[in-house]
Amino acid sequence: MKSWIVTTGNEILDGVVKNTNAEYLTKRLNELGFTVMGIQVVRDELEAIERAVRLGLDSADIVIISGGLGSTDDDITREAVASLLGRKLYIDRPFADKVFDRYKRKFGARVPRSVEKFALMIEGAKTYFGDEALVPAQVIETEGKLLVLLPGPPSELVPLFEKVFNEHPTFSQHTSAYAQRTFKFANVPESVVEESLRDVLKDVEYSTTLDYFVGPTIRIKVKQNRGDQLERIEEVIHERFPEDFFGTDETSLEEVTVKLLEKRGLTLSIAESCTGGNVSAILVKVSGLSRVYKGAVVGYNRKVKETLLHVSQSTIDKHDVVSELVAAEMAENVRKILQSDIGASVTGVAGPDRGDSRKEVGTVCFAISDSHGCRTFTENIRGDRRTVVQRASYRLLDLIRRHVLLTEGG
Amino acid sequence: MKSWIVTTGNEILDGVVKNTNAEYLTKRLNELGFTVMGIQVVRDELEAIERAVRLGLDSADIVIISGGLGSTDDDITREAVASLLGRKLYIDRPFADKVFDRYKRKFGARVPRSVEKFALMIEGAKTYFGDEALVPAQVIETEGKLLVLLPGPPSELVPLFEKVFNEHPTFSQHTSAYAQRTFKFANVPESVVEESLRDVLKDVEYSTTLDYFVGPTIRIKVKQNRGDQLERIEEVIHERFPEDFFGTDETSLEEVTVKLLEKRGLTLSIAESCTGGNVSAILVKVSGLSRVYKGAVVGYNRKVKETLLHVSQSTIDKHDVVSELVAAEMAENVRKILQSDIGASVTGVAGPDRGDSRKEVGTVCFAISDSHGCRTFTENIRGDRRTVVQRASYRLLDLIRRHVLLTEGG
Repeated sequence: MKSWIVTTGNEILDGVVKNTNAEYLTKRLNELGFTVMGIQVVRDELEAIERAVRLGLDSADIVIISGGLGSTDDDITREAVASLLGRKLYIDRPFADKVFDRYKRKFGARVPRSVEKFALMIEGAKTYFGDEALVPAQVIETEGKLLVLLPGPPSELVPLFEKVFNEHPTFSQHTSAYAQRTFKFANVPESVVEESLRDVLKDVEYSTTLDYFVGPTIRIKVKQNRGDQLERIEEVIHERFPEDFFGTDETSLEEVTVKLLEKRGLTLSIAESCTGGNVSAILVKVSGLSRVYKGAVVGYNRKVKETLLHVSQSTIDKHDVVSELVAAEMAENVRKILQSDIGASVTGVAGPDRGDSRKEVGTVCFAISDSHGCRTFTENIRGDRRTVVQRASYRLLDLIRRHVLLTEGG
Repeated sequence: MKSWIVTTGNEILDGVVKNTNAEYLTKRLNELGFTVMGIQVVRDELEAIERAVRLGLDSADIVIISGGLGSTDDDITREAVASLLGRKLYIDRPFADKVFDRYKRKFGARVPRSVEKFALMIEGAKTYFGDEALVPAQVIETEGKLLVLLPGPPSELVPLFEKVFNEHPTFSQHTSAYAQRTFKFANVPESVVEESLRDVLKDVEYSTTLDYFVGPTIRIKVKQNRGDQLERIEEVIHERFPEDFFGTDETSLEEVTVKLLEKRGLTLSIAESCTGGNVSAILVKVSGLSRVYKGAVVGYNRKVKETLLHVSQSTIDKHDVVSELVAAEMAENVRKILQSDIGASVTGVAGPDRGDSRKEVGTVCFAISDSHGCRTFTENIRGDRRTVVQRASYRLLDLIRRHVLLTEGG
């Protein structure tokens, strides 16, 4: 089934806010198996919205419109759609009363008359009310096609979109026909994954993407009635990529790493140089981290490596501040000082200048230390300063994950 | 003047890549004083592109189309535009020869015949060649309006867009008529800024935006012939907001902070708890940081605060790990341990659970220490885990900036 997205809002066209609604809808529609034929962003103007919806109805089976359902003068999506389809508008009296009540409780006695507009409905529309949203989603059937009106604020749009797609028969029938799963890999080339899985992929619909900092992902779509096909595919992938394959769907590399540490009962500490706290900041996005994570020492300056991490001056002088030996001392010492099971470190040249190092820009050394010993790695990462920092950060997280994966539970 | 953006590309509609070209063009067109009337994303299909360009020509004076200028079968933007306007296509022979040559030098003797397509021009188009791009931008005048075709890869689109806008008379005449500047503020309400500047703003075109983590910005547009009006406005803003106003245009809070430290000859170190390295990671985006920045201790775990930062157990027990007294000890000790002029710290409850603290989720304490003493602050930050971490991080950076601003040079 073909879909079309219209988002209204001058603030997007004025470059003030990003079009996160279009991004969300595109992602979800694709995940649910709808082809997105087009996206349009238009000003809050009657004629512009009418034109956009007309083009959508001419190009797709489902047109989703976000924004313009509020109570101010420039909220005119309902008027535009009613005018285009030649339908009437009416106030849903019971809902209007509810909105008045809610306003009164929240802001006191004086409720502006304009809030009535929240209850403005298009004749023949099916409505879907959410817990959070002040306005309902409206779904209209016309010309054998579907028009879905959603509110603009992302916190209201997301739950109402999901509600419509779960409850409206057209959508639920369509989506229940397919099942999808995204498989995520770290630090392995896209081509290697695709080549190795050619036999599996030839029978399914799939698309590959590259997360530039982490690695490739494959999204596979199968017919629901093909039973446990996705389970079998996951088993094959797991078998062929026991280490590179790290999770499915919404799982992130940092989440997997934290979960693995918790499962094995291991604690972690980090010593960072060129990444300047970024590895630690990525880990902190995972809630419940405190059970496994001790902390980090960010030695941006050479002195810090010496005073706080006790990296020996002679190692730095002899082997360069960016070297596997310095990385090893950083990892081992941070592990001991912070009394953790695993110590991980990264030191490199993020550029544009080389700082204290004699190495090329993009040279990054890593080390992972535990009570059994220490392993070190060197990589040459291409890109600007931010790219080197991001890639080095995810590389260290992946090295930690691989290390824990192969460690017996404590 | 009204503008319209069309971006082609299935990869955007399939949710595989973000529409960074539309974002860039929206930002630049607004900066250059063109109103963006609409954005359309369409599939690489002849009819879809024709429809989108038609709608653009009906809605605006300038239509910019990105993508579909390559040499593969789905690169059909030139065909679609030629068909819509009833114009012929031809191969620019000298340019085709150049492309063949470049290919031969780069990839060896065998050049696929399809590369000739790079030299496919629309009859009557003005062409603009870039240093990087394999294809030129094409500008076509039709119906008293302008159509601009740009290549899809951002690294080619950006310089060609700038070239067209500098060199084509329609654009250069328009843009030279206006001057713009964006003024950035930290930790002051949007309404306070707008209210205080009402006398200044009444004579100019302006728009306000809120950077959710940092503070409000105001973009002001004036006629070029009004001389040094922007300079005078900047002086007034500086006078009325000597601390809250931190920079213009592309300046970031972290850049300003680093520059101020450098100007005053001061060094900085940081102790982070709930932000987990994020403050440090934001600073690391600024190149040349190493001259002023020593490093950070990330004490995610209470033990780290005790062992590495020497925060006293009794302070934590008596006052809570999230308290101004703990923040003060963290800041003072990190300053002394890392031998820097300024120590800054943050400890708080990012949520969703409270960890070791008895304080409410969102409570964050900060401290700034130097040889003269230590100042502490407490804030209640609303939002989910990521929001609390981001806002707390930028709040600390702003506290550092304000502190350095009022410090005499060393």
